[in-house]
Amino acid sequence: MTTSIENRIRMPHLRERIISAERAAALIRDGMTVGMSAFTNASSPKLMPLAIAERAKTEKFKFKLITGASHGGDIDGILADAGVISKRMPFQTDPVMRAAINRGDILFIDQHLSKSGALLLTKEIDPVDIAIVEAVAVNEVGGVILSTSVGTSEIFLRHADKIILEINLAMPMELEGIHDIYIPDRFPIRHPIPIMHPRERVGSSAVQIDTSKVAGVVITNQMDAPSSIWQPDEKTQAIANHLTSFLLREIDSGRLTTSLMPIQAGIGSVANAVLAGMIEGPFTGLTVFSEVMQDAMFDLFDAGKLDFASATSITLSPEKAEHVFNNLHLYRDKIVLRPQLISNHPEFVNRLGVIAINTAIEMDIYGNVNSTHIMGTNMMNGIGGAGDFARNAHLTIFVSQAERQDGNISCVVPMVTHVDQTEHDTDILVTDVGLADLRGLAPRERAESIIQNCTTGKYKEMLLEYFEEAKKRGGHTPHLLEKAFSWHERYRQARSMLP
Amino acid sequence: MTTSIENRIRMPHLRERIISAERAAALIRDGMTVGMSAFTNASSPKLMPLAIAERAKTEKFKFKLITGASHGGDIDGILADAGVISKRMPFQTDPVMRAAINRGDILFIDQHLSKSGALLLTKEIDPVDIAIVEAVAVNEVGGVILSTSVGTSEIFLRHADKIILEINLAMPMELEGIHDIYIPDRFPIRHPIPIMHPRERVGSSAVQIDTSKVAGVVITNQMDAPSSIWQPDEKTQAIANHLTSFLLREIDSGRLTTSLMPIQAGIGSVANAVLAGMIEGPFTGLTVFSEVMQDAMFDLFDAGKLDFASATSITLSPEKAEHVFNNLHLYRDKIVLRPQLISNHPEFVNRLGVIAINTAIEMDIYGNVNSTHIMGTNMMNGIGGAGDFARNAHLTIFVSQAERQDGNISCVVPMVTHVDQTEHDTDILVTDVGLADLRGLAPRERAESIIQNCTTGKYKEMLLEYFEEAKKRGGHTPHLLEKAFSWHERYRQARSMLP
Repeated sequence: MTTSIENRIRMPHLRERIISAERAAALIRDGMTVGMSAFTNASSPKLMPLAIAERAKTEKFKFKLITGASHGGDIDGILADAGVISKRMPFQTDPVMRAAINRGDILFIDQHLSKSGALLLTKEIDPVDIAIVEAVAVNEVGGVILSTSVGTSEIFLRHADKIILEINLAMPMELEGIHDIYIPDRFPIRHPIPIMHPRERVGSSAVQIDTSKVAGVVITNQMDAPSSIWQPDEKTQAIANHLTSFLLREIDSGRLTTSLMPIQAGIGSVANAVLAGMIEGPFTGLTVFSEVMQDAMFDLFDAGKLDFASATSITLSPEKAEHVFNNLHLYRDKIVLRPQLISNHPEFVNRLGVIAINTAIEMDIYGNVNSTHIMGTNMMNGIGGAGDFARNAHLTIFVSQAERQDGNISCVVPMVTHVDQTEHDTDILVTDVGLADLRGLAPRERAESIIQNCTTGKYKEMLLEYFEEAKKRGGHTPHLLEKAFSWHERYRQARSMLP
Repeated sequence: MTTSIENRIRMPHLRERIISAERAAALIRDGMTVGMSAFTNASSPKLMPLAIAERAKTEKFKFKLITGASHGGDIDGILADAGVISKRMPFQTDPVMRAAINRGDILFIDQHLSKSGALLLTKEIDPVDIAIVEAVAVNEVGGVILSTSVGTSEIFLRHADKIILEINLAMPMELEGIHDIYIPDRFPIRHPIPIMHPRERVGSSAVQIDTSKVAGVVITNQMDAPSSIWQPDEKTQAIANHLTSFLLREIDSGRLTTSLMPIQAGIGSVANAVLAGMIEGPFTGLTVFSEVMQDAMFDLFDAGKLDFASATSITLSPEKAEHVFNNLHLYRDKIVLRPQLISNHPEFVNRLGVIAINTAIEMDIYGNVNSTHIMGTNMMNGIGGAGDFARNAHLTIFVSQAERQDGNISCVVPMVTHVDQTEHDTDILVTDVGLADLRGLAPRERAESIIQNCTTGKYKEMLLEYFEEAKKRGGHTPHLLEKAFSWHERYRQARSMLP
């Protein structure tokens, strides 16, 4: 263990700052802003959140919490339950925290993931007082080697007044070298960032910090909470099949090659099924430019289909995690973890021509997409990186089941109750029923394509009826405002959108 | 005249292709896609649209029309009236064409201006059959020197099967050299474009064409239709004053310098009043990275406040046009006209840190903005470049009057009826009543800031009432879906949003 600690904390004076999580948690003052490492399970500090929640049992304090994205496991829920969070930014996926947000108890800023770091750098939001960041090690010159995500940690570490490091002995030392920490120029003169391929490295492998800011080092020994195992069901498989067929048609038309373009895929069963589908078929030399590396990407590596993956975090199921972290030498040269400012940066999403595949909560007949709100009011998780990619991608694809809750909810509606992705930005919509290619279509053509291809049964009839009646009233984008949300209203009162 | 023509058409064999507009108009076949130069009055072909409309009196044909942005004067209206347009893309401002679009007679694709060229390059939409492009001259090697806009003309000229040039003798030869024609790399490997300051030039001054494609050269002699003269009224001046005060506070806070960041301003009286306000005050060394150069920018040059302006078109009032085009030597080194693919490119909007100021039709209490649709259905002009800039800018500002039509319309509503800019992308909202700074605010805080700062009188009371009632139902973004559009519905029935 001592040898290990010496290897993990290579500056002797930092080893003297090893303290308990309990003592470190006492450093947080009421009203502070805390920046924590965390991106979809990856790199959440393991001990600090629990110590903070423990302290809250006897002391009253609240702080603003910024992370990369969602915390791992139920950490966000534990913190919400402890009553210590006044404001949360920029993403979360926890049911307990979600409930607190929707009650108005926690103020939530639902933000493009490429933006939170940028707002800190330009001081548009309050600065981070304390950075609490999980790391694999600190090198001989004060470079912090991050663990399974970068997220916004490099900005927290460089700009916070105080730093608490959680050195995680369970994280393999072989993670050293997979990070590419690029610090953007400050305004007014910012140079182009020379990433022309997902594999391009432009930064360094560690985050250089001012070690005098390190107020405490906490030692922990625990892997990330695992992600769910995403088994496709009939519907997700149908969505994946429609999408794969579309990509094959694009290859036939000459608009795409068998290498496609760099893929961004949201996390979840559909994305997993789509990626799994690429193991079959003519695809070759694929690349990924995304946020999260998930199980299916490593399957694609193993199948020889995927050449390189760039992301800001690795989030795996227990089995896959065991395989990947015990065999990092197989993947180390094929992956890079970047700050989310870079992994989601409009400059690269545009330049690389990303194919962005994300999940919708609901979509409307004109191609607007709701990614965040249940029935227009209740937050689900947040927009995450969907907007970063959707707005600037080469091909913007949103997928959803056609119906949910045994057909009591139609995911294709006359008008979405919250718009996260506008009709201007959506190219392809897919449900388990089929796929609508909206490129080059005017709104009335889009409505026909979406209703005909993506819906079925009673809801298809109801959408056609709405559209026909709306057209009689006229307009570029025909709507009946007094009926646009009538399906949602019916659901609120009778738990079904069906009349 | 002969000398002039020789100077204007420097390749002798092209002079042999001079034909009448009538003969050139006969080249258009039913079902074609036509790409025409035009960007907010600038560079619309002067004779060809009239000749096409004339031909339509005796012959039935329809084509898809793509331009940079809106046509000058009433050309879009003339073409709509002639019944020759089946589909129009990506922007228009003409009342006759607007009516045809809203009747469903012309299909309109309302598109980010940075995107139409990109879609042509990647063949996501039908290719252009004929390019009809106004030019100042053709040089000795087949380089087309464009006139008062670039727009998407460089792509039309390079990718169309046939080219019709309108050589406009009224356009001063001194325009030669102000264009910067950059041709982006093709996928898969695209290099960074090294624009780090609005003044940076990365291309050439002419569009190189294959002169064998030139099917006709039409000679014309007529300046662009002038833009309106934008005199501020009390309300626009109030909006400008609120915005200027905000910028001064940002300078005081150290977040901006007196040079600000490159400014993008939509066209119109508010933008003009804001820019005019910058002649006073401590501003110095300003730059512009925008779509359109308008009157006020030249006033800022004359006042020594503005260092450089980059755009894709110049659109001026009659008096200002006379001054500027007779004194181009004063401005030539301080301006550049770029393809709209570049002027509106996410890479530069982000890298340069643009301050984007655009006009809203309506905004809602959570900061969503409607830029395009009247009462959710009827198209006004189109999103234009607002989305290009809003999504990637450093500071995204939307302005609107608080009320219109003698108070019968509130421009701040519970929920906008069409979302072009989402809450995730709006930083600052301004009305003549005041300014709401939404940075770092959660939805419930945003609603309070917008209602308190941007509204007044009866509508303020009504918004507070809606918000309070919605909060009782709960949610991250509290809404009452059954009442969200009740104001618009009241207006539809009684021509007033007031009860």
